[in-house]
Amino acid sequence: MPHPQPSLPAPAHPEVDSMLSRKFGREVANYFSGSPLNRLGFLRSEHSFLSQALNHPTTSFLLCNELQPLVQSKEAKRIQWLKFHDIKDIVGDDPFAKDEETVLKEFDSEKTSAQLVFLGVEENAKGGLEYQGKNLYKGAPFFAVDVTPKGEGKVKDACTALIKKLEEQGTGFGKGRIMELEAGDAAIYAEARQMLDWNARNPFCAQCGQPTLSVNGGFKRACPPQDVATPASGARKPCATRKGVSNLSFPRTDPTVIMAIVNHAGTHLLLGRSKRFPPAWYSTLAGFAEPAESIEEAVRREVYEEAGVLVGRVVIHSTQPWPYPANLMIGAIGQSVPDGETIDLGNDPELEDARWCPFDEVREALKIGVSGLGDPAPPEYRGGLRLPPETAIANQLMTSVVNGFVGVEAKM
Amino acid sequence: MPHPQPSLPAPAHPEVDSMLSRKFGREVANYFSGSPLNRLGFLRSEHSFLSQALNHPTTSFLLCNELQPLVQSKEAKRIQWLKFHDIKDIVGDDPFAKDEETVLKEFDSEKTSAQLVFLGVEENAKGGLEYQGKNLYKGAPFFAVDVTPKGEGKVKDACTALIKKLEEQGTGFGKGRIMELEAGDAAIYAEARQMLDWNARNPFCAQCGQPTLSVNGGFKRACPPQDVATPASGARKPCATRKGVSNLSFPRTDPTVIMAIVNHAGTHLLLGRSKRFPPAWYSTLAGFAEPAESIEEAVRREVYEEAGVLVGRVVIHSTQPWPYPANLMIGAIGQSVPDGETIDLGNDPELEDARWCPFDEVREALKIGVSGLGDPAPPEYRGGLRLPPETAIANQLMTSVVNGFVGVEAKM
Ligand SMILES: [Zn+2]
Ligand SMILES: [Zn+2]
Repeated sequence: MPHPQPSLPAPAHPEVDSMLSRKFGREVANYFSGSPLNRLGFLRSEHSFLSQALNHPTTSFLLCNELQPLVQSKEAKRIQWLKFHDIKDIVGDDPFAKDEETVLKEFDSEKTSAQLVFLGVEENAKGGLEYQGKNLYKGAPFFAVDVTPKGEGKVKDACTALIKKLEEQGTGFGKGRIMELEAGDAAIYAEARQMLDWNARNPFCAQCGQPTLSVNGGFKRACPPQDVATPASGARKPCATRKGVSNLSFPRTDPTVIMAIVNHAGTHLLLGRSKRFPPAWYSTLAGFAEPAESIEEAVRREVYEEAGVLVGRVVIHSTQPWPYPANLMIGAIGQSVPDGETIDLGNDPELEDARWCPFDEVREALKIGVSGLGDPAPPEYRGGLRLPPETAIANQLMTSVVNGFVGVEAKM
Repeated sequence: MPHPQPSLPAPAHPEVDSMLSRKFGREVANYFSGSPLNRLGFLRSEHSFLSQALNHPTTSFLLCNELQPLVQSKEAKRIQWLKFHDIKDIVGDDPFAKDEETVLKEFDSEKTSAQLVFLGVEENAKGGLEYQGKNLYKGAPFFAVDVTPKGEGKVKDACTALIKKLEEQGTGFGKGRIMELEAGDAAIYAEARQMLDWNARNPFCAQCGQPTLSVNGGFKRACPPQDVATPASGARKPCATRKGVSNLSFPRTDPTVIMAIVNHAGTHLLLGRSKRFPPAWYSTLAGFAEPAESIEEAVRREVYEEAGVLVGRVVIHSTQPWPYPANLMIGAIGQSVPDGETIDLGNDPELEDARWCPFDEVREALKIGVSGLGDPAPPEYRGGLRLPPETAIANQLMTSVVNGFVGVEAKM
C-alpha cells in the first residue's frame, strides 16, 4: 500500500513588494493557513471533473477516523496519503458518476456512504490532471474521506477492515489535538477536518427535520424533495431551503475574536487563565463573535464580560483558521481606557484568573515558557509565566505587542 | 397604544487618545455596528432577570413581521417601540417564569409560542431596571418579538389581530431591505433580525432531526431529551448535541470578505457588477469565507475565482454586521501582483463585468453617483459610474483607497 507521497510546496506567502507591504509590513500567516492547494471551488458542481480527479494517478486521499488524520508516524509530522484503489471498497467505483439533479432524484435515506470532500489541486505537481472547463485547469487532486466506522452494513465493515490493515502496516491515526503537522499538511488537514465534521454534524435539515444529502464535492448539503426510502409516492414535506439559497445548505464557520489587550500606559498585557489550564499557564482572552457585532465591538464586549476591563481602540492583527471544530480566529490588539483597567471576574465566571503582565515578563515567557496546552514546559523553563506555542495566534499577538506593535519601542 | 419612545444615545464610538489610535487612526464604524445596548449576555441564563426585564416600565419591544421592523413612519427612520402590555396576548404573562431545566423537561413540540429575544439594556436610561447579580446591573431593557402569523391557533390569531390594530393606528412594518434607520436603531434592528431569523431557520436539530426549543433569552436552541407530545414515555432519540457543547445550538454568523483591490501601480480599483445591478452600477468584489482559510486567503481566492486577478498583500480595513441574513462582512484592501492583473471572468461566472477603474473616476462617482441598489441615482448624477451608498462597507473601502489608504497621496 505505501506509494510515493506527494511533495507539497511550502505554503504560499505572497511576498510582493507593494505599497501595502511597505506601509503595513509583512503578512502574519498563522498555523493552519497557507494551504498549498487551489480549491477550484467552481468545479465542485462538475461531476465529470470530480470523477476524473478521483481516479487520477496523481490524486491523494487524506483518511480521517473520528476526525483524526492518517499520519506517517507517531510524531504526526506528515500526513500518510493514500490512493484511490486503497479506498475503493469504502467509496465505491465512482461516487461522482451522476450529476446533482440525478443524485437528488435517486436519494435514498436508508443508504449510507462514506463522506468524500474535494479539497483542491496542487497546481505545481508534475503530471497532474488536465481538465478543460471554461479554462484549462491542471494539478494533482486532493480529497478527504471519512473512514469512521458508523451505521450498519458494507461501508462500516469496509472502514473497519481498512483501519485494521493500516494499523498492521504500522501507520495509524493522530491522537488528541493535531498541532505537529508541517505547515502545508496542517492547512490541508484543517480544511478536511472542518468539512468532514460539518457533514457529520448535519445529517438532518434544521429547517424541516428531514435527512439531508451531501452534494457539490462535499461542500453542500441538500434537502432532497423526494426519498426512495419513503413509502408510497416518495415525496417529502416541503422545505424552505429548496427555494432560493439558504445558508443552512453551506458549511458553517464561526467567527471568534482573540485579543491582546494593552493597558493605556503601554506597559502591560491583559492575560487570563481558565481552570483547565496547567498551573502558571495564561493566554490572551477570546470568545465567539455574536450576531450583529463588528469585530471591534465583539472584542470590547468579551473583554468586559470576562475581565471587566473597558477597551478603546482595537486594531485587527491577523486571522487563523481553527478547525476545532469550525472557528475563524480573528486576532486583534486593543488598548484599555484609563479609567477601565480594574479587573473584575464577576460578570461572566469564565476565567479563573486574569491579570496585567508587564511586557518584560511576557517577553521572557515567550522565550522560555511556551508549550502546547497539554505538553510539559520546555527544558529551559525556570518557573513563572507559561504561554501558548508559536502555532497559536495568541502567541503571535503577544509577540507583536512586545515587539512594538502598539507604538512603544521594542526593548529587545 | 403610543407611549414615550426611548431616546437612545448616539452609537458608541470609543474615541480614546491611545497609542493605537495615534498609530492606526480612527476606527471606521460601519452601518449596523455601534449598538447603544450592553447585551449582558451572561444574564440570559437567569430567568428571573429576564422576567423582571420583560415587564419593567422602561422596557421596549421591537416587533418584527416577516423580519421587517415596526417603524414610526413610511420613511422607516425610527423604530416604533412597544410596551409589554401591547404584546402580552402574543407572548403570555411570563414566558420566562421557569428555569431552563424545567422548560426542557416540559417541552411539548405541539405547542407554539412567539419567539422572544433579549437584546440588551441601555445603561444610561433614567429609571432603568436594577438587577443584583454578582454585580449590580442597571438599564432599560430591550427585546425583539416575532409577530409573524404562523402555524395554527391562539398565537397566530393574536399576531394577526395585533398587526391589524397597528395598521389601523397608522404604524406599519418596513419594506424591502432596511437601510434608512438611524444608526442606533439600525444596530439594534440588526441584532433582532439576525436572531429572529436564526431561530426561525432552526426549528429542528440538524444532528438528529427532532424539534428544538428556544432557551437562553433566544440565544440558544436546545434539543430536549423528552417531548410531552411524544406518545408513551415521552423520551426522544439520543442526540450528540446534548453531550458537551455543539455549535449547532448557538447562532450562526457567516464570515464574508469584501475587498477593494488596487492595481500594483496604485492608480486603479478593481470593481465588478452582477446582472441584478442597475446599469453602470459597480461595487467591490465579495464572497463567503470558506472553512479553514485565513481572511487574506479568502480575499485572494475570491478575486481569482470571480475576476482572474492575483492578489498579493491584503490588509483588513474594518468590519460590518450584515443581517441579510447572517453575515459578518470583513472589509479588506488588497493589491494585485504585477503579472496578475488581466481580468478573466471565465472561472466562476458570478460577475457580468469587472474592470479597473481609475481613482479619479471612483472619486467622482463617490461624490455624485452613490445610491442604494434599488434606488434612483441622485439628482447631481450626470452619467458614468454608479456606486453603493455610505451605509455600505464597499463605499467605505473605496473612500479609504481614493483618500490614500494604500500609500499614494490623496488628490482631494
Ligand atoms: Zn429541509
Ligand atoms: Zn438533536
